[in-house]
Amino acid sequence: MKRHLLSMNDLDKQGILTILDTAESMHDVQRREVKKLPTLRGRTVVNMFFEDSTRTRSSFELAGKWLSADVINISGKGSSTSKGESLRDTVRTVAAMGVDGFVIRHSASGAAQQVSEWVDAVVINAGDGTHEHPTQALLDAYSMRRRLGDLEGRHVAIVGDLTHSRVLRSNLICLKTLGARVTVVAPPTLMPSGITTWAKSEGFEASYDFDAVLPTVDAVMMLRVQRERMSGGFFPTEREYTVSYGLTRERLRSLQEHTVILHPGPMNRGLEIATDAADAAQSLVLDQVSAGVAVRMSVLYHLLAGEGAVA
Amino acid sequence: MKRHLLSMNDLDKQGILTILDTAESMHDVQRREVKKLPTLRGRTVVNMFFEDSTRTRSSFELAGKWLSADVINISGKGSSTSKGESLRDTVRTVAAMGVDGFVIRHSASGAAQQVSEWVDAVVINAGDGTHEHPTQALLDAYSMRRRLGDLEGRHVAIVGDLTHSRVLRSNLICLKTLGARVTVVAPPTLMPSGITTWAKSEGFEASYDFDAVLPTVDAVMMLRVQRERMSGGFFPTEREYTVSYGLTRERLRSLQEHTVILHPGPMNRGLEIATDAADAAQSLVLDQVSAGVAVRMSVLYHLLAGEGAVA
Amino acid sequence: MKRHLLSMNDLDKQGILTILDTAESMHDVQRREVKKLPTLRGRTVVNMFFEDSTRTRSSFELAGKWLSADVINISGKGSSTSKGESLRDTVRTVAAMGVDGFVIRHSASGAAQQVSEWVDAVVINAGDGTHEHPTQALLDAYSMRRRLGDLEGRHVAIVGDLTHSRVLRSNLICLKTLGARVTVVAPPTLMPSGITTWAKSEGFEASYDFDAVLPTVDAVMMLRVQRERMSGGFFPTEREYTVSYGLTRERLRSLQEHTVILHPGPMNRGLEIATDAADAAQSLVLDQVSAGVAVRMSVLYHLLAGEGAVA
Repeated sequence: MKRHLLSMNDLDKQGILTILDTAESMHDVQRREVKKLPTLRGRTVVNMFFEDSTRTRSSFELAGKWLSADVINISGKGSSTSKGESLRDTVRTVAAMGVDGFVIRHSASGAAQQVSEWVDAVVINAGDGTHEHPTQALLDAYSMRRRLGDLEGRHVAIVGDLTHSRVLRSNLICLKTLGARVTVVAPPTLMPSGITTWAKSEGFEASYDFDAVLPTVDAVMMLRVQRERMSGGFFPTEREYTVSYGLTRERLRSLQEHTVILHPGPMNRGLEIATDAADAAQSLVLDQVSAGVAVRMSVLYHLLAGEGAVA
Repeated sequence: MKRHLLSMNDLDKQGILTILDTAESMHDVQRREVKKLPTLRGRTVVNMFFEDSTRTRSSFELAGKWLSADVINISGKGSSTSKGESLRDTVRTVAAMGVDGFVIRHSASGAAQQVSEWVDAVVINAGDGTHEHPTQALLDAYSMRRRLGDLEGRHVAIVGDLTHSRVLRSNLICLKTLGARVTVVAPPTLMPSGITTWAKSEGFEASYDFDAVLPTVDAVMMLRVQRERMSGGFFPTEREYTVSYGLTRERLRSLQEHTVILHPGPMNRGLEIATDAADAAQSLVLDQVSAGVAVRMSVLYHLLAGEGAVA
Repeated sequence: MKRHLLSMNDLDKQGILTILDTAESMHDVQRREVKKLPTLRGRTVVNMFFEDSTRTRSSFELAGKWLSADVINISGKGSSTSKGESLRDTVRTVAAMGVDGFVIRHSASGAAQQVSEWVDAVVINAGDGTHEHPTQALLDAYSMRRRLGDLEGRHVAIVGDLTHSRVLRSNLICLKTLGARVTVVAPPTLMPSGITTWAKSEGFEASYDFDAVLPTVDAVMMLRVQRERMSGGFFPTEREYTVSYGLTRERLRSLQEHTVILHPGPMNRGLEIATDAADAAQSLVLDQVSAGVAVRMSVLYHLLAGEGAVA
């Protein structure tokens, strides 16, 4: 019985399915003309983003508002931590105001976990360093499930900058819990060290050969490559990255008809994903965004509505 | 029948009058102790400002909130476009979340039009480059109409930096549609190229001689001069600009008694407008601000309340 | 009968007690599961912060929202004043939109007072230069009163950077009005000039010797030392400041058992206050934060609910 959502490890299979099922109902609300439930009236959620992320912050802000919560935004810039206050003092201060839930994004892995130890409020991890981003994994699972049905036994490829990806870690846990088969694909320089051991212990596969993996997958999840890393010596040129690891027009053609394409965004069109792939009928990119709000409404509901915890 | 407000060309005379008439009712709400209508409850408006404008953003935010809409603010800084995402992907992402209306300010002329082609939501242009700013023209018309009555046959001078003004273009269309006579006044360096052709085709006049125009006008609209442009070689000194094109204390005296003074703000007091003129009984500067919220409430109402479009 | 809260001088003893008593009720709301009163529905409050202060801004934002007011945030950056508009024009513009209350933070002493002369709306000073910060003094009084009871005859030490502190001035007035005895403590370089005259006319004491004052106080209020000032020649080293004027572990032991510790935050742990003191059972630091929202709800209620003024 968890009070927070810090890691995908906080949820067992039933917990994940409960969140996804509630998200289905929330998705209906989201498509209504009047998008408003009274569920969290009088509850307060603070979006505390020490790293910029308009997309995730807006998604949580809408989720909170559509459930009638009061939502306030606090960014790292201009906050007390920028005046030398410790993170602990900053979050305890905000908690002391009477906030019910923290949605926290921080560049340090483990930040959300720490915050949950310092405050009485509910804490939702919206991305901590290279560690986890659980609502991203949930919205990915939601989007795939809607198109593919039960994910048990489905084969998912996760491709790209695995070393720096919190999305990877949360997805590995989530997909394993749901019974999917996962293959991670990356060039050697962007493959996490100790991947063989990790893959063995967690039951997934790793490959450097995108083309060998592609024909058998039911879903291909392209990760964002940060252009900064390119100049950092991880890969000779953008062109060469695309040739070996981009979801190009050619690779799009090699997919099975039912195979879906995911990307957490923002996309580098022409680098890790071709425009044809991003905009294909098989692409779930915008579905993921839409699912994001529904899944976050579901998470806020289960953690803050006071009817018992998620898992 | 338009779904968006991208340009003043989207509105015919009846459309403009409908918006101004509804704005009268909204103005009453705005002056009540309890400023709140349930009209847009459950609708969501996003203020997407890629250029800073506290004034316009706040005006739209209040308009939305007083109609009970959920309003979220997204600024260009920190948004995904600053991470290399295309504008198209950024706005389609926000639209996919389930937003009903976009209020968009962008430095590129035509941006709002493009956005309207990419999303299903309603799009309101809150200023695109040097192109248009239709709600500014509507609030100007509203303010003048309240003081002068029907604008048919009234003479309006628009004075200042015409080359870089989106306010000019929207006002020219709006005032022509309402049957007013317009004279634009500027030094040669700030007069748009091809002005003679433009003026002829659109039926307005152009002049370099402020003092010749001034005695006959019913309204004088001073545009903001950006000080940056001064050093850009458009004019020798601020002092000389003021002498020839400023609404000085002397020129204030030469106005007819009923003539009103407008300025979209923020004003450079002492440059394009003297303090005596800005604060004169004839000045509508603060009325324009007040009208801005009422007009934006009216526009949001007509485009989002689902009772049929504006024009 | 005041319409604004610009200075603690705006409130007599009865006025202060009325605000503190109402704050008690608000504090109850704040600890409820549903934190929401309909009191200010349809009223609009603008948080206008020309200086960054996440803490104070968030506190006012929550206070307004829990009373059902519409709250908008305007920061100095990106506002019209950054485009050369005068403060007077900026605030008159926002007032013209129909805002009911201004919460204003500005680096210039006297700014809130000026704003109150320019607009019809209610003005609350959230910190003006080195002048005043009345809601901070009220929340300090609230926190002390809850622990110590009536402050009449109680002895309070205010310690630290007195020269640059708006918290000091507001607290001196508030505590004098409530009948408390105050001793201010600082090194000579951070003691305001003319302190002897000021102390005599206002009836407080001043000392350079923290240890002499400490054993007799009922409350010790540590002010934040800005590290920038350290390098500005006000004190040789941080270490030496701590030795003479920090609330160290040793000094914590010398306090009477009932003596409470306050700090307006953000704290420099290890500089003006040791971690043991900040986290001691006697420390009211988080109580102050919690009280801040309750006190601001009370102030907003008394000034904006339209049932008569505070004092």
